[in-house]
Amino acid sequence: MTLEEKALQLHYEMQGKIEVISRKPVTTREDLSLLYTPGVAEPCRVIARDEEESFRLTRRSNLVAVVTDGTAVLGLGDIGPAAGMPVMEGKCVLFKEFGGIDAFPLCIDSKDVDTIVETVRLLSKNFGGINLEDISAPRCFEIERRLKEVCDIPVFHDDQHGTAIVVAAAMLNAMKVAGKEMGKMKIVINGAGAAGIAIGKLLIRMGFGNVVLCDIHGIICEGDDGLNPGQEEISHISNLNKEKGTLADALKGADAFVGVSRPHMVTKEMVASMNQGIVFAMANPVPEIMPEEAKAGGAVVVGTGRSDYPNQINNVLIFPGIFKGALAVRAKEITESMKVRAAYAIAALIPEDKLTAENIIPSALDKTVADAVAKAVADVAIEEGIARIKK
Amino acid sequence: MTLEEKALQLHYEMQGKIEVISRKPVTTREDLSLLYTPGVAEPCRVIARDEEESFRLTRRSNLVAVVTDGTAVLGLGDIGPAAGMPVMEGKCVLFKEFGGIDAFPLCIDSKDVDTIVETVRLLSKNFGGINLEDISAPRCFEIERRLKEVCDIPVFHDDQHGTAIVVAAAMLNAMKVAGKEMGKMKIVINGAGAAGIAIGKLLIRMGFGNVVLCDIHGIICEGDDGLNPGQEEISHISNLNKEKGTLADALKGADAFVGVSRPHMVTKEMVASMNQGIVFAMANPVPEIMPEEAKAGGAVVVGTGRSDYPNQINNVLIFPGIFKGALAVRAKEITESMKVRAAYAIAALIPEDKLTAENIIPSALDKTVADAVAKAVADVAIEEGIARIKK
Repeated sequence: MTLEEKALQLHYEMQGKIEVISRKPVTTREDLSLLYTPGVAEPCRVIARDEEESFRLTRRSNLVAVVTDGTAVLGLGDIGPAAGMPVMEGKCVLFKEFGGIDAFPLCIDSKDVDTIVETVRLLSKNFGGINLEDISAPRCFEIERRLKEVCDIPVFHDDQHGTAIVVAAAMLNAMKVAGKEMGKMKIVINGAGAAGIAIGKLLIRMGFGNVVLCDIHGIICEGDDGLNPGQEEISHISNLNKEKGTLADALKGADAFVGVSRPHMVTKEMVASMNQGIVFAMANPVPEIMPEEAKAGGAVVVGTGRSDYPNQINNVLIFPGIFKGALAVRAKEITESMKVRAAYAIAALIPEDKLTAENIIPSALDKTVADAVAKAVADVAIEEGIARIKK
Repeated sequence: MTLEEKALQLHYEMQGKIEVISRKPVTTREDLSLLYTPGVAEPCRVIARDEEESFRLTRRSNLVAVVTDGTAVLGLGDIGPAAGMPVMEGKCVLFKEFGGIDAFPLCIDSKDVDTIVETVRLLSKNFGGINLEDISAPRCFEIERRLKEVCDIPVFHDDQHGTAIVVAAAMLNAMKVAGKEMGKMKIVINGAGAAGIAIGKLLIRMGFGNVVLCDIHGIICEGDDGLNPGQEEISHISNLNKEKGTLADALKGADAFVGVSRPHMVTKEMVASMNQGIVFAMANPVPEIMPEEAKAGGAVVVGTGRSDYPNQINNVLIFPGIFKGALAVRAKEITESMKVRAAYAIAALIPEDKLTAENIIPSALDKTVADAVAKAVADVAIEEGIARIKK
């Protein structure tokens, strides 16, 4: 049986990967009176007087909405809200298993930005945080921006920021292994959608020297025609030497490649043209270049999104801890500094003496990572004065 | 400590009464590959081809949304979506504990009918059913009617229909105990809001002779000014003798009283004026008349909403089974016949030889009731040809 057949069979057997349970059994009259009427009236009254108490009296304190419109699900594209659900349930499973966070999927049957924003806003008092997922670019940028304005809880588009943080964490350690200096590195990102732009922004913010983005038309350069707003924005702070040309041109002499694009975009020869290159080929399930080939081309550190090669660069290391930390201190938002600190926190989980070209990032199955990320996020929230609960 | 203090303390301790869990632990790479990427792509593809498969491949098969706008929460009134959450979580607890149904609260931050309908519609592909809760009349009627039109899954306003079914079940047995004949009974309902009207309609449909509704202005009569649409509709089939006057006038010679109103609306003298009356005084927590007083007035059967008196008439006997049955056969809707059969199914759970004035309805804690209700609902769905899965 193939993995796909096995996964499908498992999904039919499970009939849903998440479940909503009661945190207390109801067997006596007193249970009924305390959990439901008439006892339940009292917590209602308390919240009616002070809405902030909803974070202490309901599950909101630990609950994240996983929101999608089903327009950019995995590599499957626009498959709609019902078909997107298995991914969203899977995400909720990971939230719980890795972060202890309750997460519930909201697959919205609309592609209209206004409608999506309004639907989430109308339900935002049910949740402690909003995780946006698999929403196509450039709509995802506007949805995130506007939700941050109208919601009083953290909003985080994992495809952008989760990916950016995990790449940054891996890059910090890969840089050490490769003996490169952050400020002098040239990093080429292939794929200038939601993930690529977010990775670029975070790496630039962290001080990586020159970030160059490419899309299917080649290198993105300030002043190019046809850039979307996200690309236009990053064009002012990336590609400092105003290079033009193809991905192959960009890679000549580059110190690192980050692929969030499609299979087989990079050849052994292109890797050979790099400066002892770091290669993160994260297209899933087939990377931009297979690790064996990248190494044959001279790559010094190779990472992928796959679990069957070393250095799996996977968002599951990020989002459970981000929300765990934010919820722990009731952070108002997820800030840029939190992302930076989360990246450093993950990188630091690999001790110097264990750091090798095959071991730059913790295993995706390492359930201690979320606590390190959560601590970083909560610490920053307190430092920045945006925590409503002191730890 | 009072019950209220105890309930509040318990709510602070629990920090939420429901929890979203993973139905499978994630510990190996294979778990991750099967439950999330890349394996999850296959169930997504299957649903994209045939949306009906979402009922087999996701939790939708067993999942009900508990929807409110927080406008009519318990006796607390319009306290808003955040403050309504403890009740909605409590409802979800009961769905799980009594019906094995996963339920998740959606407290919508709007009172606008269009907005509420559209929000639920946009999320309806996430769920197998919609349970409306604590939405004020007359908005609740229109919301339910329109949601039934736009959603492809059962929509059920529990405050109306759950209450109506449980009252009907209790009335069937009370009638036997009191030796009354259904078609000749006069039943007075006090409270002409969502619950009162729904009770009236169901009792009339079931063949109870003459149902008379009262509101704060007294008896509702065909042609009265100022009736809302729901009251106007039922005025044509109720109060067959076109009585006018007060609740006290209506009760003279009546066979049964059903109170869904406020404490202390009925006196011992009013009960004494009835024809060996059945008294269901369901205002919560303080009934329209206390059972001791009703009996002193000559009531032959007394029921309340309270757990500390015999004959607790509580919706928890209804909604878990209604959705359990509907989901089991993928019924398209909850029909009138289902409600009638559910009422008879519950009444039949008290064997003739156990039927007494103190025992007309199963205990609210009896977890076998949901299966009896579910069977009735599923049977009717199959008979009516609206089941998509044959049992």
